Amino acid sequence: MKIGQYAFDEFVDKVREFHGSAAPGVIAGGVMVDIAREHLPQGKLYDVVCESAKCLPDAVQLLTPCTLGNGWLKVCETSRYALAFFDKYTGEGVRVFLDASALGPWPALRAWFLKEKAKAEQDQAEIVEEIKKAGRSIYGIEHVRVKRDFLASRTRRHRPVSLCPSCGEAYMADLGQRCPACMGTGPYETG
Amino acid sequence: MKIGQYAFDEFVDKVREFHGSAAPGVIAGGVMVDIAREHLPQGKLYDVVCESAKCLPDAVQLLTPCTLGNGWLKVCETSRYALAFFDKYTGEGVRVFLDASALGPWPALRAWFLKEKAKAEQDQAEIVEEIKKAGRSIYGIEHVRVKRDFLASRTRRHRPVSLCPSCGEAYMADLGQRCPACMGTGPYETG
Repeated sequence: MKIGQYAFDEFVDKVREFHGSAAPGVIAGGVMVDIAREHLPQGKLYDVVCESAKCLPDAVQLLTPCTLGNGWLKVCETSRYALAFFDKYTGEGVRVFLDASALGPWPALRAWFLKEKAKAEQDQAEIVEEIKKAGRSIYGIEHVRVKRDFLASRTRRHRPVSLCPSCGEAYMADLGQRCPACMGTGPYETG
Repeated sequence: MKIGQYAFDEFVDKVREFHGSAAPGVIAGGVMVDIAREHLPQGKLYDVVCESAKCLPDAVQLLTPCTLGNGWLKVCETSRYALAFFDKYTGEGVRVFLDASALGPWPALRAWFLKEKAKAEQDQAEIVEEIKKAGRSIYGIEHVRVKRDFLASRTRRHRPVSLCPSCGEAYMADLGQRCPACMGTGPYETG
Protein backbone atom coordinates (compact mmCIF):
# COMPACT_ATOMS: atom_id res chain seq x y z
CA MET A 1 0.00 0.00 0.00
CA LYS A 2 1.34 3.40 -0.98
CA ILE A 3 0.42 6.80 0.41
CA GLY A 4 1.09 9.58 -2.08
CA GLN A 5 4.49 8.92 -3.61
CA TYR A 6 5.63 7.03 -0.51
CA ALA A 7 5.62 3.41 0.56
CA PHE A 8 3.37 3.10 3.64
CA ASP A 9 6.22 2.79 6.13
CA GLU A 10 8.14 5.60 4.46
CA PHE A 11 5.10 7.85 4.91
CA VAL A 12 4.98 6.86 8.59
CA ASP A 13 8.57 8.14 8.88
CA LYS A 14 7.62 11.40 7.14
CA VAL A 15 4.75 11.84 9.59
CA ARG A 16 7.05 11.23 12.54
CA GLU A 17 9.45 13.85 11.23
CA PHE A 18 6.88 16.59 10.53
CA HIS A 19 4.20 15.89 13.13
CA GLY A 20 6.47 14.67 15.94
CA SER A 21 4.95 11.19 16.26
CA ALA A 22 3.50 8.46 14.06
CA ALA A 23 -0.01 9.67 14.84
CA PRO A 24 -2.74 7.39 13.48
CA GLY A 25 -4.78 10.44 12.54
CA VAL A 26 -2.16 11.75 10.12
CA ILE A 27 -1.53 8.31 8.63
CA ALA A 28 -5.23 7.62 8.02
CA GLY A 29 -5.41 11.19 6.72
CA GLY A 30 -2.79 10.30 4.12
CA VAL A 31 -5.03 7.52 2.79
CA MET A 32 -7.92 9.98 2.70
CA VAL A 33 -5.87 12.47 0.67
CA ASP A 34 -5.15 9.74 -1.87
CA ILE A 35 -8.81 8.72 -2.12
CA ALA A 36 -9.93 12.33 -2.56
CA ARG A 37 -7.39 13.01 -5.29
CA GLU A 38 -8.34 9.91 -7.24
CA HIS A 39 -11.95 11.06 -7.33
CA LEU A 40 -11.19 14.55 -8.63
CA PRO A 41 -11.06 15.46 -12.30
CA GLN A 42 -7.43 15.52 -13.43
CA GLY A 43 -5.67 18.82 -13.99
CA LYS A 44 -8.03 20.98 -11.92
CA LEU A 45 -6.76 23.41 -9.32
CA TYR A 46 -8.21 22.35 -6.02
CA ASP A 47 -8.27 23.71 -2.50
CA VAL A 48 -8.74 21.62 0.61
CA VAL A 49 -10.89 22.03 3.70
CA CYS A 50 -10.31 19.90 6.79
CA GLU A 51 -13.18 19.53 9.24
CA SER A 52 -10.78 19.30 12.16
CA ALA A 53 -7.47 20.98 12.95
CA LYS A 54 -6.29 17.77 14.58
CA CYS A 55 -3.92 15.61 12.55
CA LEU A 56 -5.65 15.87 9.16
CA PRO A 57 -4.07 19.18 8.09
CA ASP A 58 -0.62 17.66 8.50
CA ALA A 59 -1.47 14.83 6.07
CA VAL A 60 -2.58 17.45 3.54
CA GLN A 61 0.52 19.57 4.07
CA LEU A 62 2.81 16.55 3.67
CA LEU A 63 1.19 15.23 0.50
CA THR A 64 -0.14 18.20 -1.46
CA PRO A 65 0.94 21.74 -2.39
CA CYS A 66 -1.77 23.02 0.00
CA THR A 67 -0.58 24.53 3.29
CA LEU A 68 -2.29 26.62 5.92
CA GLY A 69 0.02 29.54 5.16
CA ASN A 70 -0.55 29.60 1.41
CA GLY A 71 -4.31 29.57 1.85
CA TRP A 72 -5.00 26.48 -0.22
CA LEU A 73 -5.79 24.56 2.96
CA LYS A 74 -8.46 25.77 5.35
CA VAL A 75 -10.00 24.41 8.50
CA CYS A 76 -13.72 24.56 9.20
CA GLU A 77 -14.10 22.95 12.58
CA THR A 78 -16.97 20.45 12.78
CA SER A 79 -14.82 17.99 14.77
CA ARG A 80 -15.69 15.26 12.24
CA TYR A 81 -12.75 13.33 10.87
CA ALA A 82 -13.18 14.38 7.26
CA LEU A 83 -11.64 16.46 4.51
CA ALA A 84 -12.79 17.72 1.15
CA PHE A 85 -10.87 18.58 -2.00
CA PHE A 86 -12.78 21.06 -4.14
CA ASP A 87 -12.53 23.16 -7.27
CA LYS A 88 -11.50 26.57 -5.97
CA TYR A 89 -13.73 28.39 -8.45
CA THR A 90 -16.92 26.32 -8.42
CA GLY A 91 -16.72 24.70 -4.98
CA GLU A 92 -17.59 21.27 -6.41
CA GLY A 93 -15.60 18.54 -4.80
CA VAL A 94 -15.13 15.25 -3.04
CA ARG A 95 -15.45 14.68 0.69
CA VAL A 96 -13.74 11.72 2.36
CA PHE A 97 -14.51 10.67 5.93
CA LEU A 98 -13.51 7.89 8.27
CA ASP A 99 -16.63 5.73 8.55
CA ALA A 100 -17.22 4.68 12.16
CA SER A 101 -19.64 1.96 11.01
CA ALA A 102 -16.85 0.23 9.06
CA LEU A 103 -14.54 -0.20 12.05
CA GLY A 104 -16.00 -3.46 13.41
CA PRO A 105 -13.10 -5.64 12.17
CA TRP A 106 -10.50 -3.23 13.58
CA PRO A 107 -10.73 -3.09 17.37
CA ALA A 108 -7.59 -1.02 18.06
CA LEU A 109 -8.51 1.51 15.37
CA ARG A 110 -12.08 1.68 16.62
CA ALA A 111 -10.99 2.21 20.25
CA TRP A 112 -8.70 5.02 19.12
CA PHE A 113 -11.23 6.68 16.83
CA LEU A 114 -14.14 6.59 19.27
CA LYS A 115 -11.85 7.24 22.27
CA GLU A 116 -13.09 4.05 23.91
CA LYS A 117 -9.79 3.70 25.76
CA ALA A 118 -7.54 6.20 27.48
CA LYS A 119 -4.59 7.22 25.33
CA ALA A 120 -2.10 5.51 27.69
CA GLU A 121 -3.84 2.15 27.15
CA GLN A 122 -3.68 2.35 23.37
CA ASP A 123 -0.94 0.76 21.29
CA GLN A 124 -0.06 3.22 18.52
CA ALA A 125 1.83 0.61 16.46
CA GLU A 126 -1.21 -1.69 16.52
CA ILE A 127 -3.53 1.10 15.41
CA VAL A 128 -1.20 2.01 12.55
CA GLU A 129 -0.98 -1.66 11.53
CA GLU A 130 -4.78 -1.83 11.38
CA ILE A 131 -4.89 1.34 9.25
CA LYS A 132 -2.49 -0.37 6.87
CA LYS A 133 -4.44 -3.64 6.75
CA ALA A 134 -7.81 -1.93 6.44
CA GLY A 135 -6.63 -0.22 3.26
CA ARG A 136 -9.47 1.80 1.76
CA SER A 137 -12.31 -0.19 3.33
CA ILE A 138 -12.94 2.17 6.25
CA TYR A 139 -13.58 5.45 4.43
CA GLY A 140 -16.69 6.96 2.93
CA ILE A 141 -16.81 9.26 -0.08
CA GLU A 142 -19.41 11.78 -1.10
CA HIS A 143 -19.86 14.62 -3.51
CA VAL A 144 -20.05 18.08 -1.92
CA ARG A 145 -20.24 21.72 -2.84
CA VAL A 146 -18.46 24.04 -0.40
CA LYS A 147 -19.95 27.32 0.71
CA ARG A 148 -19.06 30.52 -1.12
CA ASP A 149 -16.90 31.71 1.77
CA PHE A 150 -14.30 29.09 0.85
CA LEU A 151 -14.06 29.94 -2.85
CA ALA A 152 -11.09 31.76 -4.36
CA SER A 153 -13.31 34.72 -5.28
CA ARG A 154 -13.78 35.36 -1.55
CA THR A 155 -10.49 34.22 -0.05
CA ARG A 156 -8.21 35.87 -2.64
CA ARG A 157 -9.97 39.22 -2.85
CA HIS A 158 -8.01 42.39 -2.20
CA ARG A 159 -8.38 43.63 1.36
CA PRO A 160 -7.05 47.10 2.23
CA VAL A 161 -4.66 47.53 5.15
CA SER A 162 -4.85 50.22 7.84
CA LEU A 163 -2.79 51.02 10.89
CA CYS A 164 -4.81 50.38 14.05
CA PRO A 165 -5.25 53.68 15.95
CA SER A 166 -4.86 51.81 19.26
CA CYS A 167 -1.83 49.53 18.81
CA GLY A 168 -0.36 51.11 15.66
CA GLU A 169 -0.02 47.79 13.88
CA ALA A 170 -1.17 46.99 10.36
CA TYR A 171 -4.46 45.06 10.09
CA MET A 172 -7.22 44.37 7.58
CA ALA A 173 -9.27 47.55 7.51
CA ASP A 174 -12.51 45.72 6.73
CA LEU A 175 -12.48 44.21 10.23
CA GLY A 176 -13.44 47.44 11.96
CA GLN A 177 -12.23 50.80 13.25
CA ARG A 178 -9.62 49.09 15.40
CA CYS A 179 -7.89 45.74 15.01
CA PRO A 180 -9.55 42.63 16.50
CA ALA A 181 -6.91 42.40 19.25
CA CYS A 182 -7.66 45.95 20.41
CA MET A 183 -11.37 45.07 20.32
CA GLY A 184 -10.74 42.20 22.72
CA THR A 185 -10.73 39.09 20.53
CA GLY A 186 -6.97 38.58 20.33
CA PRO A 187 -5.11 35.70 22.00
CA TYR A 188 -3.65 37.65 24.93
CA GLU A 189 -4.76 38.63 28.41
CA THR A 190 -4.87 42.39 28.74
CA GLY A 191 -3.20 44.22 31.60
CA MET B 1 22.21 36.03 8.06
CA LYS B 2 20.82 32.64 9.05
CA ILE B 3 17.21 31.61 9.55
CA GLY B 4 16.89 28.65 11.89
CA GLN B 5 19.56 26.15 10.87
CA TYR B 6 19.57 27.45 7.30
CA ALA B 7 21.56 30.03 5.41
CA PHE B 8 19.15 32.78 4.29
CA ASP B 9 19.02 31.66 0.64
CA GLU B 10 18.69 28.02 1.65
CA PHE B 11 15.65 28.95 3.75
CA VAL B 12 14.18 30.76 0.74
CA ASP B 13 14.46 27.47 -1.17
CA LYS B 14 12.75 25.58 1.67
CA VAL B 15 9.93 28.13 1.61
CA ARG B 16 9.55 27.74 -2.14
CA GLU B 17 9.31 23.98 -1.75
CA PHE B 18 6.76 23.91 1.10
CA HIS B 19 4.75 27.07 0.47
CA GLY B 20 4.85 27.05 -3.34
CA SER B 21 6.62 30.41 -3.77
CA ALA B 22 9.30 32.50 -2.07
CA ALA B 23 6.63 34.50 -0.27
CA PRO B 24 8.03 37.48 1.67
CA GLY B 25 5.58 36.74 4.47
CA VAL B 26 7.05 33.33 5.17
CA ILE B 27 10.64 34.57 4.91
CA ALA B 28 10.08 37.48 7.31
CA GLY B 29 8.17 34.98 9.46
CA GLY B 30 11.32 32.87 9.65
CA VAL B 31 13.25 35.81 11.12
CA MET B 32 10.40 36.34 13.60
CA VAL B 33 10.57 32.69 14.70
CA ASP B 34 14.29 33.10 15.39
CA ILE B 35 13.77 36.29 17.39
CA ALA B 36 10.98 34.71 19.46
CA ARG B 37 13.04 31.64 20.26
CA GLU B 38 16.04 33.67 21.36
CA HIS B 39 13.90 35.52 23.86
CA LEU B 40 12.42 32.41 25.46
CA PRO B 41 13.95 30.62 28.43
CA GLN B 42 15.93 27.64 27.19
CA GLY B 43 14.56 24.14 27.58
CA LYS B 44 10.91 25.13 28.02
CA LEU B 45 8.12 23.49 26.07
CA TYR B 46 6.42 26.19 24.11
CA ASP B 47 3.38 26.46 21.89
CA VAL B 48 2.91 29.05 19.17
CA VAL B 49 0.01 31.26 18.20
CA CYS B 50 -0.01 33.11 14.88
CA GLU B 51 -2.26 36.14 14.58
CA SER B 52 -2.86 35.45 10.90
CA ALA B 53 -3.28 32.25 8.90
CA LYS B 54 -1.45 33.89 6.00
CA CYS B 55 2.19 32.92 5.52
CA LEU B 56 3.30 32.98 9.17
CA PRO B 57 2.13 29.44 10.06
CA ASP B 58 4.31 28.04 7.29
CA ALA B 59 7.43 29.67 8.78
CA VAL B 60 6.58 28.09 12.13
CA GLN B 61 5.91 24.69 10.57
CA LEU B 62 9.20 24.79 8.63
CA LEU B 63 11.37 25.83 11.57
CA THR B 64 9.86 24.34 14.73
CA PRO B 65 8.25 21.08 15.87
CA CYS B 66 4.92 22.96 16.01
CA THR B 67 2.38 22.16 13.30
CA LEU B 68 -1.31 22.88 12.92
CA GLY B 69 -2.09 19.17 13.05
CA ASN B 70 -0.18 18.41 16.24
CA GLY B 71 -1.85 21.26 18.06
CA TRP B 72 1.31 23.07 19.12
CA LEU B 73 0.55 25.79 16.58
CA LYS B 74 -2.72 27.68 16.67
CA VAL B 75 -4.14 30.59 14.76
CA CYS B 76 -6.09 33.38 16.43
CA GLU B 77 -7.02 35.69 13.61
CA THR B 78 -6.43 39.36 14.37
CA SER B 79 -4.98 39.96 10.87
CA ARG B 80 -1.87 41.51 12.46
CA TYR B 81 1.43 40.19 11.22
CA ALA B 82 2.59 38.74 14.52
CA LEU B 83 3.26 35.52 16.35
CA ALA B 84 3.87 34.54 19.93
CA PHE B 85 5.80 31.68 21.47
CA PHE B 86 4.51 30.86 24.95
CA ASP B 87 4.90 28.42 27.80
CA LYS B 88 2.08 25.94 27.24
CA TYR B 89 1.35 25.66 30.97
CA THR B 90 1.62 29.26 32.17
CA GLY B 91 0.88 31.16 28.96
CA GLU B 92 3.83 33.49 29.51
CA GLY B 93 5.64 34.26 26.30
CA VAL B 94 7.17 36.50 23.72
CA ARG B 95 5.31 38.22 20.89
CA VAL B 96 7.14 39.34 17.76
CA PHE B 97 5.53 41.62 15.19
CA LEU B 98 6.57 43.35 12.01
CA ASP B 99 6.77 47.02 12.94
CA ALA B 100 5.22 49.21 10.23
CA SER B 101 6.93 52.29 11.68
CA ALA B 102 10.38 50.78 11.03
CA LEU B 103 9.84 50.28 7.29
CA GLY B 104 10.86 53.77 6.14
CA PRO B 105 14.25 52.68 4.72
CA TRP B 106 12.67 49.73 2.89
CA PRO B 107 10.29 50.96 0.17
CA ALA B 108 9.59 47.62 -1.51
CA LEU B 109 8.98 45.87 1.79
CA ARG B 110 6.78 48.72 2.96
CA ALA B 111 4.71 48.71 -0.24
CA TRP B 112 4.20 44.95 0.12
CA PHE B 113 3.35 45.05 3.83
CA LEU B 114 0.90 47.92 3.63
CA LYS B 115 -0.44 46.81 0.23
CA GLU B 116 0.45 50.19 -1.25
CA LYS B 117 0.91 48.59 -4.67
CA ALA B 118 -1.04 45.92 -6.54
CA LYS B 119 0.61 42.52 -6.32
CA ALA B 120 1.43 42.51 -10.04
CA GLU B 121 3.49 45.70 -9.63
CA GLN B 122 5.60 44.31 -6.82
CA ASP B 123 8.98 42.69 -7.30
CA GLN B 124 9.15 39.67 -4.99
CA ALA B 125 12.94 39.33 -5.30
CA GLU B 126 13.41 42.97 -4.28
CA ILE B 127 11.15 42.56 -1.25
CA VAL B 128 13.05 39.45 -0.15
CA GLU B 129 16.35 41.27 -0.60
CA GLU B 130 15.11 44.06 1.66
CA ILE B 131 14.02 41.52 4.29
CA LYS B 132 17.55 40.14 4.19
CA LYS B 133 19.23 43.55 4.42
CA ALA B 134 16.87 44.82 7.13
CA GLY B 135 17.93 41.94 9.37
CA ARG B 136 16.27 42.27 12.75
CA SER B 137 15.72 46.02 12.61
CA ILE B 138 12.08 45.90 11.48
CA TYR B 139 10.52 43.75 14.20
CA GLY B 140 9.11 44.60 17.59
CA ILE B 141 9.15 42.33 20.64
CA GLU B 142 6.92 42.33 23.69
CA HIS B 143 6.09 40.15 26.64
CA VAL B 144 2.60 38.63 26.56
CA ARG B 145 0.43 36.21 28.47
CA VAL B 146 -1.96 34.22 26.29
CA LYS B 147 -5.55 33.59 27.30
CA ARG B 148 -6.46 30.38 29.15
CA ASP B 149 -8.16 28.96 26.05
CA PHE B 150 -4.75 28.45 24.45
CA LEU B 151 -3.12 26.63 27.38
CA ALA B 152 -2.43 22.90 27.36
CA SER B 153 -4.87 22.37 30.22
CA ARG B 154 -7.66 23.44 27.87
CA THR B 155 -6.48 22.24 24.49
CA ARG B 156 -5.28 18.78 25.61
CA ARG B 157 -8.24 17.90 27.81
CA HIS B 158 -10.16 14.71 27.14
CA ARG B 159 -13.26 15.28 25.05
CA PRO B 160 -15.76 12.42 24.66
CA VAL B 161 -16.83 11.31 21.21
CA SER B 162 -20.41 10.57 20.10
CA LEU B 163 -21.96 9.50 16.84
CA CYS B 164 -24.11 12.31 15.42
CA PRO B 165 -27.74 11.14 15.24
CA SER B 166 -28.18 13.02 11.93
CA CYS B 167 -25.11 12.14 9.84
CA GLY B 168 -23.87 9.14 11.84
CA GLU B 169 -20.31 10.44 11.99
CA ALA B 170 -18.13 10.70 15.07
CA TYR B 171 -17.84 14.19 16.60
CA MET B 172 -16.95 15.85 19.89
CA ALA B 173 -19.99 15.33 22.09
CA ASP B 174 -19.45 18.57 24.02
CA LEU B 175 -20.35 20.55 20.88
CA GLY B 176 -24.06 19.76 21.09
CA GLN B 177 -26.76 17.15 20.46
CA ARG B 178 -25.79 17.00 16.78
CA CYS B 179 -22.49 17.73 15.07
CA PRO B 180 -21.74 21.30 13.96
CA ALA B 181 -22.17 20.38 10.27
CA CYS B 182 -25.69 19.06 10.91
CA MET B 183 -26.41 22.25 12.86
CA GLY B 184 -25.49 24.33 9.82
CA THR B 185 -21.98 25.59 10.52
CA GLY B 186 -20.06 23.14 8.32
CA PRO B 187 -18.25 24.08 5.13
CA TYR B 188 -20.79 22.68 2.64
CA GLU B 189 -23.93 23.92 0.95
CA THR B 190 -26.87 21.76 1.91
CA GLY B 191 -29.25 20.36 -0.68
